[in-house]
Amino acid sequence: MEFKISKDLILELEQLIQSKNNSQLEVLLNDLHHADIAEILDELDFDEATYIFRLLDSQKTSEILLELEDDLRENILSRLSPKEIAEEIDELDTDDAADIIGELSQAKKEEVISELEDVEHAKDIVDLLRYAEDTAGGLMGKELVKVNENWSVLTCVKEMRLQAENVTRVHSIYVVDDEDRLKGRLSLKDLLTTSTKTQIADIYIKKVTYVRVDTEDVEVARIMQKYDLEAIPVVDEMGRLVGRITIDDIIDVIKDEADKDYQLAAGISQDVEADDSILELTKARLPWLVLALLGGFITVKVIGLFEVAMLEHGKLFFFTPLIAAMAGNVGVQSSAIIVQGLANNTMTGTLAQRLLKELSLSLLNGFILAIILFLGTHFLLGFEIQMVQIVAISLISVIITASLIGTFIPIILNKYGIDPALATGPFITTSNDIIGTLIYFSIARLILGF
Amino acid sequence: MEFKISKDLILELEQLIQSKNNSQLEVLLNDLHHADIAEILDELDFDEATYIFRLLDSQKTSEILLELEDDLRENILSRLSPKEIAEEIDELDTDDAADIIGELSQAKKEEVISELEDVEHAKDIVDLLRYAEDTAGGLMGKELVKVNENWSVLTCVKEMRLQAENVTRVHSIYVVDDEDRLKGRLSLKDLLTTSTKTQIADIYIKKVTYVRVDTEDVEVARIMQKYDLEAIPVVDEMGRLVGRITIDDIIDVIKDEADKDYQLAAGISQDVEADDSILELTKARLPWLVLALLGGFITVKVIGLFEVAMLEHGKLFFFTPLIAAMAGNVGVQSSAIIVQGLANNTMTGTLAQRLLKELSLSLLNGFILAIILFLGTHFLLGFEIQMVQIVAISLISVIITASLIGTFIPIILNKYGIDPALATGPFITTSNDIIGTLIYFSIARLILGF
Repeated sequence: MEFKISKDLILELEQLIQSKNNSQLEVLLNDLHHADIAEILDELDFDEATYIFRLLDSQKTSEILLELEDDLRENILSRLSPKEIAEEIDELDTDDAADIIGELSQAKKEEVISELEDVEHAKDIVDLLRYAEDTAGGLMGKELVKVNENWSVLTCVKEMRLQAENVTRVHSIYVVDDEDRLKGRLSLKDLLTTSTKTQIADIYIKKVTYVRVDTEDVEVARIMQKYDLEAIPVVDEMGRLVGRITIDDIIDVIKDEADKDYQLAAGISQDVEADDSILELTKARLPWLVLALLGGFITVKVIGLFEVAMLEHGKLFFFTPLIAAMAGNVGVQSSAIIVQGLANNTMTGTLAQRLLKELSLSLLNGFILAIILFLGTHFLLGFEIQMVQIVAISLISVIITASLIGTFIPIILNKYGIDPALATGPFITTSNDIIGTLIYFSIARLILGF
Repeated sequence: MEFKISKDLILELEQLIQSKNNSQLEVLLNDLHHADIAEILDELDFDEATYIFRLLDSQKTSEILLELEDDLRENILSRLSPKEIAEEIDELDTDDAADIIGELSQAKKEEVISELEDVEHAKDIVDLLRYAEDTAGGLMGKELVKVNENWSVLTCVKEMRLQAENVTRVHSIYVVDDEDRLKGRLSLKDLLTTSTKTQIADIYIKKVTYVRVDTEDVEVARIMQKYDLEAIPVVDEMGRLVGRITIDDIIDVIKDEADKDYQLAAGISQDVEADDSILELTKARLPWLVLALLGGFITVKVIGLFEVAMLEHGKLFFFTPLIAAMAGNVGVQSSAIIVQGLANNTMTGTLAQRLLKELSLSLLNGFILAIILFLGTHFLLGFEIQMVQIVAISLISVIITASLIGTFIPIILNKYGIDPALATGPFITTSNDIIGTLIYFSIARLILGF
């Protein structure tokens, strides 16, 4: 039942575009969902995609525009005149419209707005543009159904039908007072199951969860998830109902947040995709690599401090990458668990309790790993008992230290309002490399006395 | 406006529980949202939480049950009798009910089901229990509003009102034929804006996106996101409408999937939380650490092959952690970008094109890093030009190799139906440590001729 994109279809479309067979193109595309057409356009080159885009009517293309990959959308928008863009915008909900207009240059933005047909729609969009992207104001749309608490159900139903014409999906009916202040809500279910003779004031639910225009987007996502809401009303500083946020916008926030944590853990410093340019990818990857390299200099310096051991205990130097790797892996594990615990709000207890638990855990893990190390390096790799002892003791010490650091740093960062995910990835591996190496050689010096 | 849990509130509740002041407890809790009460119970100890749980009525506690942390829910369920659990289940939607019952032991499961009051509800739950958790069948609920295509609107509205009584949120009205086969849908908006005299057959939308009971959960999530759906109907093998999935369940699937990728990247092998027991955390963390340790043995062995260099070129051994760390970091970056590209379906081009791009990228990054390395180690750390040359050339080679491996492995895993996220984290860092060290010493041997 679901649409599947195929190479044959793409080939057929490319030929139809070449031969300018518009009627056949329309036949092929008219029945498809806008999300499917967006998928097709992403597979075509910019010229072909623009050709098809111009062929379809703006009711469809406006929806397609929202689904396209960023670079294709940017390209198509750059080819369209302000009037053409305005036609697309006229079809869109205010929140989507504001997102698209927000991507335009300042000059083009103004031209497009002046070309908009529906003045009310234009006003709403201009209003939305002033909110920061990562706030409730930046997420909300103006399309909603609201009724006055003083209305009778009859007026209400009549008014609602009018309002619903402009609203794609009706989630909730919000109840406001004469000053437009949010008072409560009416559920659609109530509407289905209540007699039409009832009074609004008697049936509306006075408890309603809302957010303010300046609430952060991740906070909106948290609230909507916690209270299992599919839409949430947004009020301004004076409590007046100014918009609503729907769950589909929140899914994007949740995914972006998860992607960001993942990228930080992988040492990528900004939002990039596999298909971005080499320059963009370099900008995203190089900073953490430079940091890791500078950390590497310190490791070299640390090892250099123990150069004297090379003559009699040269084999010590065989183990530095192993010790550093174990420190890095343990540190990343510890910090990742804390970062997720903080993000999902599933962590209880004080910092001291948390560190104590991590200490027990790393003692257990470290002990098991030290035994494996002992057996492996002595019997398998044939190292002497004394050397093996040094490495095993170091391994336990390094695992404990690394896991405590991996636990401590994200909690502290979070306490001071810094994103704890910063502490995962290259940052934690690099610092643990340095500290792990230092601990290892210090223990060796203590035991061997060089 | 939002509820904030406070230490004072917890303390007050604990005192009220101690003094068995039930009336005051009820006053404090009755006005709170069930999600807030769940948050409070998670902060109390098991006995206190159970006390409050028993105090509140099952309409509230059934909802609370769904929001509790796993271990507290398990604990409370173990204290409740089958009859008490059945009272909770009676209040829940079928999908949530099936989730809770699914957590019980086989014996208790049957006892609880036999205690359920509403036979239709019980039948629906038993039906849902037979589907695998990670399929559309495992996600769906039975609560939906459906109308027959042959009905008049009058019959339809009457029937719908009856059905809607059992449905918390009405997303769509599904249209079926006499055999219960899904034919299309009616939007709630149509209902609001259409005259009551219209015939169903004339107004229903024949295009409806659906999934089958055996569709994988991540696929359901992909489809619902792509087509921007807030609910999707589920049909059986014969096309009969058997349930619906709502967007809130899909958010959990999306979050779980993101969490899983993150945990794999961090070297945690199963779904754990910061608050799990030390044993559970060890089970989740030790496997990857053992793997990394075994990889470390190979690195030791590799370095051992070049022991002869220690006499004249001992300083070479200072750089092994740096080289290994850079290889690891580059590999993780590359694989993470591929894993996200595959997950979000935003990657185009062939494997060869992808590798070529990664080659150019790593050449650029490698070159810049090699210059920094050269300057830093020569002027800052005072190493000789020849040594610095060796390390710089090795760094470029290692970066290229690591990024190609990091790109290649997840793509290949994905091709063979294995989760590409497996290739991130300890797996990629460990293999890149080994290969990086080998490349470094081989280049050194080539240049220095030891």
